[in-house]
This record gives sequence, C-alpha cells and structure tokens, in this order.
Amino acid sequence: MITVVKIGGNILDDPSSLESFIVKFAGLAGKKVLVHGGGKVADQIAKKMGVVLKIVDGRRITDLQTLDIITMVYAGLINKNLVADLNALGCNAIGVCGADANLMIANRRPMAEIDYGFVGDITFVNAEILTNWLNIGICPVISPITHDGHGQLLNTNADTIASSVALAISKFFSVRLVYCFEKKGVLKDVNDEGSVIPFLDEKITNDLKERGMIHSGMLPKLENAINTVKGGVDAVYIGHAEELEWLIEGKSGTKIIH
Amino acid sequence: MITVVKIGGNILDDPSSLESFIVKFAGLAGKKVLVHGGGKVADQIAKKMGVVLKIVDGRRITDLQTLDIITMVYAGLINKNLVADLNALGCNAIGVCGADANLMIANRRPMAEIDYGFVGDITFVNAEILTNWLNIGICPVISPITHDGHGQLLNTNADTIASSVALAISKFFSVRLVYCFEKKGVLKDVNDEGSVIPFLDEKITNDLKERGMIHSGMLPKLENAINTVKGGVDAVYIGHAEELEWLIEGKSGTKIIH
Repeated sequence: MITVVKIGGNILDDPSSLESFIVKFAGLAGKKVLVHGGGKVADQIAKKMGVVLKIVDGRRITDLQTLDIITMVYAGLINKNLVADLNALGCNAIGVCGADANLMIANRRPMAEIDYGFVGDITFVNAEILTNWLNIGICPVISPITHDGHGQLLNTNADTIASSVALAISKFFSVRLVYCFEKKGVLKDVNDEGSVIPFLDEKITNDLKERGMIHSGMLPKLENAINTVKGGVDAVYIGHAEELEWLIEGKSGTKIIH
Repeated sequence: MITVVKIGGNILDDPSSLESFIVKFAGLAGKKVLVHGGGKVADQIAKKMGVVLKIVDGRRITDLQTLDIITMVYAGLINKNLVADLNALGCNAIGVCGADANLMIANRRPMAEIDYGFVGDITFVNAEILTNWLNIGICPVISPITHDGHGQLLNTNADTIASSVALAISKFFSVRLVYCFEKKGVLKDVNDEGSVIPFLDEKITNDLKERGMIHSGMLPKLENAINTVKGGVDAVYIGHAEELEWLIEGKSGTKIIH
C-alpha cells in the first residue's frame, strides 16, 4: 500500500504544526509520497520584492514574475527544507517538481474570460519513475510546479497534483490518498469541528450537495476525491495534519470510497 | 564514459550564452551530469528584498537569510528552469541538490577567524543513486546546496561539488570532468585569450605555479583539477562554455591529466 499525502498551505505556514506533521509523516510505515502546497511565504517574499501578486475570484494570476517567485519558493525554499528535515528523520526523501525527470507534463490553461497566466492542467504523470523511486525506498516530495515539455514551467494546483499522482501509480500499487489540512475533516457545520462526516461516497456526497450542506470551499476537494476513488485509488482521507496516523486508521477525519 | 560538466555563474547570467550552452550540453552523446553555480541572480533578488549579501575576502558569508535566498535561487529558480529547458531538448534531466536522496552530505565549516556561516564541506556523495539515474538514462542537474543530514541546508562551492561527484562515480564508470566558464582555458597571460595552455599535469602545473605564471583566481580550480585526476577521474577539461564539444575532443581549452 502506497500512501500519498498532500499537505496544505496553512500547515506549512505554522512552524510548530509543520514540525509535528513532518515527524508524523516520516514515521508512517510503508512506501509514501508527499505533495506540498505553497502557503503564505510566496506572498511574503513577493511583498519584500515589491511585487504585487494578483488574485481574481480567489485565484492567483500567475504572470512571469509570479511564476519566478513561486518556482523559487515552492520548488526551492519549501521543497528543499522539507526534504532536509525528512532525511534527518531517516525518510530518504527526494524533492522534485513536474519538470524533474518529466514527472508531470501539463498544458497551459487556455485563456478564457480571465487569463490565469502560466497555469498548467496535467496531461501526463511519469508513473514509471515514481515506481522506480518507491521500489528503491525513496520518498518523492513533490512541489506544485509542472512544465509543458517545451521549456515552460507552469503553476499547478497541489490538490490536483496529489490526485493525479495517486491515480497514476494506482496502476501498479494499491494507493490511498490523504489530504491533510487545518480542519478535522469534511464538516456538516463549517463552524463546528465536532461535526465531521466520517464516511462519504458519491451517492452521499451528491445528496449533501443537493441539500446545500457542503461548504463551497470544500466542494472542489470533494469532487476531486470522488473522481480519485472512481479512478482506482482505494480511498481518500480528508482531515487534520496532526491526526495523520489516525486518519488512515479511520479513527479521525472523513474517508471517501467508491 | 560519463561526462560531468560544471557551468559557471557568468554563463548563467547571460541568456544567449546560456541558451547556446544548454543546446550543446543536451547534444552531448553518452551519460552526463550537469553541476551549476549561482550567478548574479541571487544578488539581484537579495537587493530587491532589501537584503545585503555580505562578502569578506571575496567570499560570501552565508547567514540564514542568505541561505534562504540562495536555496530559492539556486535549487529553485535556476535549477528548475535549466531542467525544463534540457527536457524540452529530450535530455531527461532531474534537478537535485545535496539534500535530495541524500545526494551530498557535508559538514558545516568550523568557525575560524572569519565565520562563513552556513557553508558545507562535502563528506559523502551518494554514488549509488547517481549510478541508478545514469543507468536508466536520467541526467542529474545538481545545484550547489548540500545538507548536514540533520536538517540543515548548506551553501557549497559548485567547483568542489563537480569534482566530488566526478570522483564518486569514477568508482563505477570512466569519467571526464569539464569546467565551462567564460575564458578559453587556463591562460599563460590572463589578458590574452590566445595564450591557452593546451595540456597540464601535476609537474607542469607546479612548475608554472613556482614561476608565478598561474593567475590567483585560477589556482584553486587547477589544484582541484589535479586532485581530481589523481583521485581517478580520466581527465579534467577547462575552457569556454561555447566550445564544450571541442573541449572534450581536445581541440580547444586546457586538458589536465594525471
């Protein structure tokens, strides 16, 4: 069983939560993959550099200057520090982005009403090289940058990367995917951490969606999770980063199956 | 025969020289490794961020803030763009620093009269993982950052990295090492590009050194080269990045052998 874990921005921004997560992730038994997001560091660095990062409808516009900054921060600063920390705990991690060994190739998103800039939608995941690494005991740590195969780096959503990677290696291994963030799971009431929905499948999710019971911010994550289990991943877990080992035992968080 | 190529900062700073070099490197036949330096981008980013990079006796002092900036720029921005460009040319490159898969472990340099900060001297190169990559057709692209194995990233001289990597894999392969920079080779007269010394070994180098005929900036590079060929690397070539393919054919630059 391979465990693919995605760690979100809010955990990366909080040194003590991050440290605790790293220890838990390093301690996970079996083969594993870590996918990380960005957090607020890119915004802080941009601000120091006098660059204004543009957001439209809650989404970042990746112009060339922004792309350079997130490449530095995601693939450099965050990725290499995570790798050094994991290796200190005996994890044998390798930090990569989609350009490395052609791990993930993407198409630049076509310009619609809004031009999101250098943003990529994944078209190919190199499952062969992931399998090679996993089989020799290496833990890939993946930053959310892809490339188009013609020399252009592209900003890509980390949730989508986690799901695409899990799906690609599910052709060769049993795979579970864990989305770790700062909430205890999918909540019935977004203001009540005690209202975690322990179990979801497509039917229950659709029912809840129709009754307007799923928070808009959670909706893309859940649709992504449903597609992932439909595509061949054993289960998707959504929950708090500090409860990583309980999540995969079903003792905490939300479990989504086909 | 494995070709390890080190590309220096001045080439990285000039887009047209860099593009031309990348095409030549991608076109090199056989298994190969690229080691890159930093260039002036780190200084430019630091300046934009309002950080003053400290230099003492011509050497950078790597405090924590500087370490973050060079990690971003070397392991992120420069490394990932090189990799995307090489992969666009069919090179199958992977960008790594010393922390990745424990590629290079270093000791933080002990504090002497000057504290150079987070600077590492290499103690171990993971020849096994390099051999694995080379044997499956992957070209490692190495940025000059190492780690101490306890979670600390360290700034490390790229010339030394190139030499250490070449020596480590020379246990398993025939290896040649090429130092590419903006001069045509080791020059008898530093102001005359026509005065390239075509051939050097330890004896000739010592003679020239005693007669004060080697420029001080070239001395550490040459001593490094002599040690590398004494350690088991077939030959070291020093010359202009734009003449890469002529260098290894002995038609240009300086060739150093044991």
